[in-house]
Amino acid sequence: MIQISDTTLRDGAQAEGVTFSPDDKIQIVRALDELGIQWIEAGNPGANPMDALFFEKISKEPALANARLVAFGSTCRTGNDPSNDPALITLSRCCADTVTIFGKSSAYHVDHVLHCSLEENLRIIRDSVAFLISSGKTVWYDAEHFFDGWKQNKDYSIKTVITAVESGASRIILCDTNGGSFPQDITDAVREIKQVCKAPLGIHCHNDCGLATANTLAAVEAGCDLIQGTIGGVGERCGNADLCTLIPLLELKKHKSCLPKGYLNRLTHTSRVIFEVMNLSPNEGAPFVGYSAFAHKGGMHIDAVMKDQATYEQIDPESVGNQRRFLLSDQSGRAGIYARLGKLLPDLNRDSSEIQKIINRLHQAESIGYTYENADGSFELLALDTIGRMPHFFTVLDYHVLCHYPYDASDNKNQPSAQAYLKVQVDQQVGINAAEGDGPVNALDLALRKTLSQFYPSLRNMRLKDFKVRVLTAKGTASAVRVSIESTDGAHFWNTVGVSKDIIQASLNALTDSVNYMLAKYVPSEEINFAVQA
Amino acid sequence: MIQISDTTLRDGAQAEGVTFSPDDKIQIVRALDELGIQWIEAGNPGANPMDALFFEKISKEPALANARLVAFGSTCRTGNDPSNDPALITLSRCCADTVTIFGKSSAYHVDHVLHCSLEENLRIIRDSVAFLISSGKTVWYDAEHFFDGWKQNKDYSIKTVITAVESGASRIILCDTNGGSFPQDITDAVREIKQVCKAPLGIHCHNDCGLATANTLAAVEAGCDLIQGTIGGVGERCGNADLCTLIPLLELKKHKSCLPKGYLNRLTHTSRVIFEVMNLSPNEGAPFVGYSAFAHKGGMHIDAVMKDQATYEQIDPESVGNQRRFLLSDQSGRAGIYARLGKLLPDLNRDSSEIQKIINRLHQAESIGYTYENADGSFELLALDTIGRMPHFFTVLDYHVLCHYPYDASDNKNQPSAQAYLKVQVDQQVGINAAEGDGPVNALDLALRKTLSQFYPSLRNMRLKDFKVRVLTAKGTASAVRVSIESTDGAHFWNTVGVSKDIIQASLNALTDSVNYMLAKYVPSEEINFAVQA
Repeated sequence: MIQISDTTLRDGAQAEGVTFSPDDKIQIVRALDELGIQWIEAGNPGANPMDALFFEKISKEPALANARLVAFGSTCRTGNDPSNDPALITLSRCCADTVTIFGKSSAYHVDHVLHCSLEENLRIIRDSVAFLISSGKTVWYDAEHFFDGWKQNKDYSIKTVITAVESGASRIILCDTNGGSFPQDITDAVREIKQVCKAPLGIHCHNDCGLATANTLAAVEAGCDLIQGTIGGVGERCGNADLCTLIPLLELKKHKSCLPKGYLNRLTHTSRVIFEVMNLSPNEGAPFVGYSAFAHKGGMHIDAVMKDQATYEQIDPESVGNQRRFLLSDQSGRAGIYARLGKLLPDLNRDSSEIQKIINRLHQAESIGYTYENADGSFELLALDTIGRMPHFFTVLDYHVLCHYPYDASDNKNQPSAQAYLKVQVDQQVGINAAEGDGPVNALDLALRKTLSQFYPSLRNMRLKDFKVRVLTAKGTASAVRVSIESTDGAHFWNTVGVSKDIIQASLNALTDSVNYMLAKYVPSEEINFAVQA
Repeated sequence: MIQISDTTLRDGAQAEGVTFSPDDKIQIVRALDELGIQWIEAGNPGANPMDALFFEKISKEPALANARLVAFGSTCRTGNDPSNDPALITLSRCCADTVTIFGKSSAYHVDHVLHCSLEENLRIIRDSVAFLISSGKTVWYDAEHFFDGWKQNKDYSIKTVITAVESGASRIILCDTNGGSFPQDITDAVREIKQVCKAPLGIHCHNDCGLATANTLAAVEAGCDLIQGTIGGVGERCGNADLCTLIPLLELKKHKSCLPKGYLNRLTHTSRVIFEVMNLSPNEGAPFVGYSAFAHKGGMHIDAVMKDQATYEQIDPESVGNQRRFLLSDQSGRAGIYARLGKLLPDLNRDSSEIQKIINRLHQAESIGYTYENADGSFELLALDTIGRMPHFFTVLDYHVLCHYPYDASDNKNQPSAQAYLKVQVDQQVGINAAEGDGPVNALDLALRKTLSQFYPSLRNMRLKDFKVRVLTAKGTASAVRVSIESTDGAHFWNTVGVSKDIIQASLNALTDSVNYMLAKYVPSEEINFAVQA
């Protein structure tokens, strides 16, 4: 059993572009708790007032099912007494039973940053741990720069750890703070410190050399029974060890349990929920949980995986709650397309003439710049339409979009810079409406949904989640562009694509596909029937 | 000396969302060549017609300075003779002297995918290598699934390698195709195969366990003298080993040279240029070359780094051409920005107050989404403008762009789908003109140059060479967008950038920068004087 300590909310908050409100933190704590994480290092209440507020708020919430909170802080300052240190006092009064304090475990840092004697630093560690113990806390000592210190003055690094344990620290976290160590460095140091340190050991690695995963594994092999990391590896500089990689590696390949039995398949979902709260795009190629982690593109690979998934997959994607995807590209042939159509149209077999018709239409679309790799929605619509199974919900009869400076001289303020007028036909009826927005695509998007909501009220719940533009050929501003959008109705997500030399037209193609997809899949049939028979 | 083989253009093309035109490939080959990469595995001409076109095109281009191209392909099919295999024939005729062919080096894959006898697979390898040797190629054998095969049937995996070498292969690339191996697996297998294989060994790792870096290093320690990987680790599923991590690790920390002496500081720039061509956002937290790789956020960290950079940086950022950034202060990047301004404004010294003013303005622009990495034109204009040395050539007073269906009922034909009206002021004169185009950006671009050419006739020679759009934040169609354009007057090329929530406004910003840059640098002063005094 390896204990997991998640520090997304503490060290992860050091990442560029990451900030958490107390409510964000509570959402993430709940998600980690549901995943079955044992320890959540949730913030530094002595240094950060928002973190203090978070601990206060969560102390009034219903208890967690699996996780325990850990609060983080620093040892006291040079020449100071912990009992006069406001940050340590706050830490001692915080609701978490367990607190981690970091101290300097590198003689170089004592010399070059603290500018005090090596003995004074030991005093700082001793007094700070003892103070928190005396206030009733379980104390973990975070040995900052332990591995770098080890290379320069091993004896001193050992002394800091021994001092913390003798003062009452019940666990030592060994830190590769700058992320500059190699696995062998970690192995050697952990093995040796384990001989002299009576407290159990944890490991905290950074990814500055791309080795945080390997280093954490090396520490586990050498005797650490707790690993610290973050969801998606977010953290300062190049980030921390990624728990979404380490947990599956340890459970599936090293056969060491980390989560409650049966919880591992919650991992992909949890990681995506937490990225949503952080408002970051998850790394699509992340091991195990990435959107592309089990995405096959080459035709030969697809063919082989369909025969036997083990040929090009190291584990079963469902074991971590992820899924296999067959990408459609000019590299994937009939096998890939059939694999993807199988679920949608189970009544067709591999040799049906319909399959060939769909492939022909796909190739035609690809030749003008469409790609269905990341546009399942448009792919399904194309397939259904080709074989005559796509209902007709609406036609865009006409549109005009006007773009101009986003400036209104009358009130000296920036105004929406575009207006769109749109005319649609739904069955026998015509709808005309207009909207304004930031730029022509936004205006057109708003106008389309506004106009169609008259007929299909559920479309009021639809919104765009992501919008991407790719210029296909380098021919200046007259190049063909591909617009890819991700849409949601709050409960589902789907992707569509449009191509044209005109970005407005390309956007309209992707938007109409998106609306059609929602109408075909997620809108109650009563609403559809009502609209087309009204 | 470790040899580097870049496979961004071959295995990297298997990544979701990555497609290369032949011209994209040529741009990337040039960038890799300038970085001093030794081998570039550039495509599979037998399987992919676009790759065949690329090899044909590049064979007519000026020679490369450092790199040599490698073409990639497969061994022949079961029961077939290589001399009848169209893909192998294409490969044998391609312009690259060195070709790599992959074959099955795992008995499991021979059984479950090829469905032929183990002996037949050895025949396939033998005949395919021999055929390419007989057509004058240097042949490398890519041992697919070597490490997985090793675990299941070690003797057979060894046999495939020996067969390839005995048939004339001059190098073996050992592949962890599914990315499921641990460093110790790699170490054990490489050490043992090295005892029996006479050809030099290369290593090709995938990142499905987050261990591609550690595994590649383990292979080098065990005796491989060539590493294969991609820029930024792009590749199928979770990607390939990342050369931008491995090259600095090997050069700076293992003291093994990979690039020509003095070239390492080109790495960050090269990686960003290649990501631009791929139209992908680089991973900000990527080791060494990431935008955040040396970004310090915590106040204590910043303070320590200012005292002594080694306290929180494992290497000097400038050694890889990256720069330190302090997220909470305005001190960041001064050296890097000064280095870039030095050429433009040689009369300023590092402590000039003008430099600080430029830095402040850059930070302000960056905070709303501008990036000057690949926009030297806009960077120079911003610098000159900040210190009052930028001549004022024109002002856009107003514009309107109208977009609609590209269809004219009167003649049943597609027509330009957008019209732009534009009003500019040049000195005391006002010019009004209009143009139509394919989409709003094209119409506006044409109208701007048409209107300004009345005053500056040289602008008639200007045209856009490339146009890119990047959506900066995923908030649907109202997201901020960055437009990057490359312009030319036939003799020179320059890059500019514009940002806005409105794609039309962002394009106008990039276009006006482009016109201003041409007027400032490449238009005869008589023409400028005539216009502003007319």
